[in-house]
Amino acid sequence: MPLGERGPWDKSESRYCGVETDFSDDVPHLISFNLALGGFDFIVAPLMDPSYRPSLVQKNESVSNVMPVAGSDLVLSPSQWSSHVVGKISSWIDLDSYDDTLRLDSETTLKQEIAWASHLSLQACLIPIPKGASCANYARCVNQILQGLSNMQLWLKIPLVHADDDPEEMKSDCWNDYWELWNSFRLLCEHHSQLYVVLDIPSSLPSENSIGRWFGESVKAVVLNTDCFLTNARGYPCLSRRHQKLISGFFNHSIQIVVSGKALHKLPGGSSGSADLHSNKNVDSVQKHPLRVYLDYVGYLYQKMDPLPEQERFELGYRDFLQSPLQPLMDNLEAQTYETFEKDTVKYLQYQRAVAKALIDRVPDDNASAVTMVLMVVGAGRGPLVRASLQAAEETGRRLKVYAVEKNPNAVVTLHSLVKLEGWENFVTIVSSDMRYWDAPEKADILVSELLGSFGDNELSPECLDGAQRFLKEDGISIPTSYTSFIQPITASKLYNDVKSHKDLVHFETAYVVKLHSVAKLAPSQPVFTFTHPAPSMEIDNRRYKKLNFEIPNDTGSVMVHGFAGYFNAILYQDVHLGIEPSTATPNMFSWFPIFFPLRKPICVQPGSALEVHFWRCVGSTKVWYEWCVASPCPSPVHNTNGRSYWVGL
Amino acid sequence: MPLGERGPWDKSESRYCGVETDFSDDVPHLISFNLALGGFDFIVAPLMDPSYRPSLVQKNESVSNVMPVAGSDLVLSPSQWSSHVVGKISSWIDLDSYDDTLRLDSETTLKQEIAWASHLSLQACLIPIPKGASCANYARCVNQILQGLSNMQLWLKIPLVHADDDPEEMKSDCWNDYWELWNSFRLLCEHHSQLYVVLDIPSSLPSENSIGRWFGESVKAVVLNTDCFLTNARGYPCLSRRHQKLISGFFNHSIQIVVSGKALHKLPGGSSGSADLHSNKNVDSVQKHPLRVYLDYVGYLYQKMDPLPEQERFELGYRDFLQSPLQPLMDNLEAQTYETFEKDTVKYLQYQRAVAKALIDRVPDDNASAVTMVLMVVGAGRGPLVRASLQAAEETGRRLKVYAVEKNPNAVVTLHSLVKLEGWENFVTIVSSDMRYWDAPEKADILVSELLGSFGDNELSPECLDGAQRFLKEDGISIPTSYTSFIQPITASKLYNDVKSHKDLVHFETAYVVKLHSVAKLAPSQPVFTFTHPAPSMEIDNRRYKKLNFEIPNDTGSVMVHGFAGYFNAILYQDVHLGIEPSTATPNMFSWFPIFFPLRKPICVQPGSALEVHFWRCVGSTKVWYEWCVASPCPSPVHNTNGRSYWVGL
Repeated sequence: MPLGERGPWDKSESRYCGVETDFSDDVPHLISFNLALGGFDFIVAPLMDPSYRPSLVQKNESVSNVMPVAGSDLVLSPSQWSSHVVGKISSWIDLDSYDDTLRLDSETTLKQEIAWASHLSLQACLIPIPKGASCANYARCVNQILQGLSNMQLWLKIPLVHADDDPEEMKSDCWNDYWELWNSFRLLCEHHSQLYVVLDIPSSLPSENSIGRWFGESVKAVVLNTDCFLTNARGYPCLSRRHQKLISGFFNHSIQIVVSGKALHKLPGGSSGSADLHSNKNVDSVQKHPLRVYLDYVGYLYQKMDPLPEQERFELGYRDFLQSPLQPLMDNLEAQTYETFEKDTVKYLQYQRAVAKALIDRVPDDNASAVTMVLMVVGAGRGPLVRASLQAAEETGRRLKVYAVEKNPNAVVTLHSLVKLEGWENFVTIVSSDMRYWDAPEKADILVSELLGSFGDNELSPECLDGAQRFLKEDGISIPTSYTSFIQPITASKLYNDVKSHKDLVHFETAYVVKLHSVAKLAPSQPVFTFTHPAPSMEIDNRRYKKLNFEIPNDTGSVMVHGFAGYFNAILYQDVHLGIEPSTATPNMFSWFPIFFPLRKPICVQPGSALEVHFWRCVGSTKVWYEWCVASPCPSPVHNTNGRSYWVGL
Repeated sequence: MPLGERGPWDKSESRYCGVETDFSDDVPHLISFNLALGGFDFIVAPLMDPSYRPSLVQKNESVSNVMPVAGSDLVLSPSQWSSHVVGKISSWIDLDSYDDTLRLDSETTLKQEIAWASHLSLQACLIPIPKGASCANYARCVNQILQGLSNMQLWLKIPLVHADDDPEEMKSDCWNDYWELWNSFRLLCEHHSQLYVVLDIPSSLPSENSIGRWFGESVKAVVLNTDCFLTNARGYPCLSRRHQKLISGFFNHSIQIVVSGKALHKLPGGSSGSADLHSNKNVDSVQKHPLRVYLDYVGYLYQKMDPLPEQERFELGYRDFLQSPLQPLMDNLEAQTYETFEKDTVKYLQYQRAVAKALIDRVPDDNASAVTMVLMVVGAGRGPLVRASLQAAEETGRRLKVYAVEKNPNAVVTLHSLVKLEGWENFVTIVSSDMRYWDAPEKADILVSELLGSFGDNELSPECLDGAQRFLKEDGISIPTSYTSFIQPITASKLYNDVKSHKDLVHFETAYVVKLHSVAKLAPSQPVFTFTHPAPSMEIDNRRYKKLNFEIPNDTGSVMVHGFAGYFNAILYQDVHLGIEPSTATPNMFSWFPIFFPLRKPICVQPGSALEVHFWRCVGSTKVWYEWCVASPCPSPVHNTNGRSYWVGL
């Protein structure tokens, strides 16, 4: 039974809540007890008798040996196994033990249990926290298993613990920062896409920054122990504010909750006990499940979340989905694309404000009716900037003569009907031409354009406007006046794995437009390239080079950088700006998702180490491209050399 | 004129010595002066007037502009250009300058000069030492160039300087350890195979360990400045002992010497001056080249090197050449292979000594004529171990009955003729069978085998002998008694690039037999797996797992680990051993080259960091394979999971 129904759009896996149980060989009863009575959606249950040790089984009996698994595969239907049971691998296993027998028994057991789970078509198995300071043999064995696994996922349990101790002590036998353990494990398994983390939530939480890293990792579920719960005035379990916020964060990232542990809250109506059967063999049907009260609280948290804004709901399907950036200069946009972007009223309002300010600056009130400004919209599309400009003129009482220059002949058709429909024939001239080559009959006071990509200049606004500024008056105004790109380092396991799944270099050297969601932003964004219009110098050079140093806050701990999120901010005119850079983003504007520059090999940055990044904008005779690299703490190859993988055509 | 002729086998490039010159637009004269008069083999000469700056050239003259290069391509024949001239790129360039004009001028010049050199079909260009603390833009630009270069090499000049300063000070604006600069540069260029180092030799040398790293890097030449030379009693230039040793090391690794600088030794017969023309315009033909005396000294060092031992000369062609290991169990060896190995007299003498000792131990002198020992040679091949065993019997006066067991029917043919030829019919029985399945008519006192690979157990000696020990008496002796594999981390740029050139995963997860030469051994080797015969336990388990920690000496500095060199040592019997582990290697034995386990991505280890490595020997029903990984300082993927790339068939 899901935690709640927030609306038809809510397809999140985090609606489902599981419960961890002890071993029982009566799985059907375990299911009915925890699902029907308890209200949970699935159980996380051991598959094999915990007393089993392969080395204790007599060798000579091996022929007739039966693995001590919980029931046979026939006790549940295949769909019940796969939708209601997550296998819990024996927690005694220790694959990095110095004790050879224990180590080899562990390997045998792990392989047998996963083979059994796979035979049952379970969706996932929870594998226990690595013990001790090393995890190489455990990871080697899991990696072997992963190579042969069809669909099943492996969920590695990792404590959400990061002791902020002296870094000197980090070398002890245990892990101060369990993120490091996870990182070693997944590197040894080469970021395998079926390997996930299940976080074990402690009662005392690490810093916000330390926790934040996990939202860029492939976390599938969290185990919420009953001892994390406080007790409210009425004797019911509740969570601290920080825990509540954390749980909401998990809900937001489709991370499932698994309740675990003994019932620690004795309520009038219920009884204490655990989620397994032993203490409840003869329970009567009116008796409540001992952990139901925790589930109810989790459900309460789920239901009290703020509803998603409409725009967010609309964009749900785009979350963490890689798209190739548009090439509007080389390709002509389709009607549907125009349609989508024209709906972004916030954007056009900003343009209208910018044009209005420019008109007022350029034409004093006294002259308003005497002077006609020449305004050219370059890249007019189907006309929204023409409309915004005319509205600005009307609003300010200025007279305007508009040229609408558009290279896409299909959009020009729409422009003509718009002008006729609106009765703009007397002051709007439509020009079907590429602005770079148009021979303008007069010069413009104001040049209005919207040629910006997610990374500002990445749709070649600089090259287009350099061509267009021929017909801008010496003292004319370009709207936008300037724009700047920004980047910040991010952890983005999912994006990395999606890029990797293509198994080629090209995809690792391409920038993607993507609605970033399951990412961890590791440091504030920094400016990269700035372009100003009209270009101040006679010798225009649109090549750029920027070296950036990011400092990751010390309390974050070590992090994995999978690449860089890119944004832009544009100054339209004076204080009117437009952009998606997170700290200054224009609210409720939806025309641009961020851009993502991947790294071919993710780079681990230790606390206190600087992350030095270099970005280049290169210009050739037929194309523009970016190259990028990390120089420190560990140099990466230069990405996209000579634009071999990703470029924008001139 | 080469430095010397050490014999017809000497094809080393280090026979050729170059000289660095200043710019001259009379290249033919530059050549004749330095080659005919000076005796050098090639010149390293600037190609472009050093006063050239692209930004100073008027833009409007650009159509008629001619690059200020040294002469036209016609002044030398194509073969002269390519065999006598190495291009020296303008040393003023600084691609990481904060000065935009200088930076862009540098990029333009670098590209123009290399394009010109490429037009002339030069073999290589020397590119200057990066200036300042960053080299990312320089590397990006070189990387762009490398992508489009057909055959020409780029030689990056790097000072052989490693100041053993406080590591705290390493963050200064300059490089304390120039190896780090090289490492950043080549990582940014992704180990490009046409990018080489030219070391600039200082008068004061860093530690042996620090220098040692370079022998695993792709060093093509060294620049030997005249100010490195001391003056001997007769006023002639000479080098310190450490410098002499270093130069010999370069000769040994096919690294060319380039003499550079002003003549600092005024000799009676010559004149001082530099290698360029200016001071020698009107020189008469009897006058000596001012740097000739330095060349003569370099030639003297070349000629006084110890001659290569015959075996080394024979193996010259195998240096750093990757070979797949034999699979003698799955495949039958060819006659030629037997022929080669049978020539290794040292090996068979060790076996003879071991058998002799075993016979003496087992049969007291008093019983020598009364008792007949049963000795079985398992894997008898064409009979060398049968012969060694019989010689041991003769030497000790013991009586022997020999079974020669061999699975290769082709070798059995040879065995039969050997026995007939030698008249051994009465005491040698030939068995054509796989030892694992042979039904022996009696049990053996001594089991002799030589089933060892370069890594000891890698040709499945354990599995074969486990099968054969059925017919060894309870108290019988196996020769060998045990064997142990060893590994050590190495820098091996050439091997890494050769593996990489295959562009697939399989080659990165394969172990290779290779005569290691241009490698740097970074730490003493450590034991990995040991097998003892007869196997002590009833339950034989030939799986193995070993975790190793290597400490790289602090004065080495940072290093790049491209993989691991593997060796073995075998105890034949008591104190008689046989092996290739460097510290205990059997002299003059040539049957085994080391083995090389590559890393998919080389791992950089900083001073003071431990290198933790894990090796597994895995056993399946039809094959045996190794898996390996690095766990620290930075986890690698586990290599060769499930033996997917490299395995030995059972």
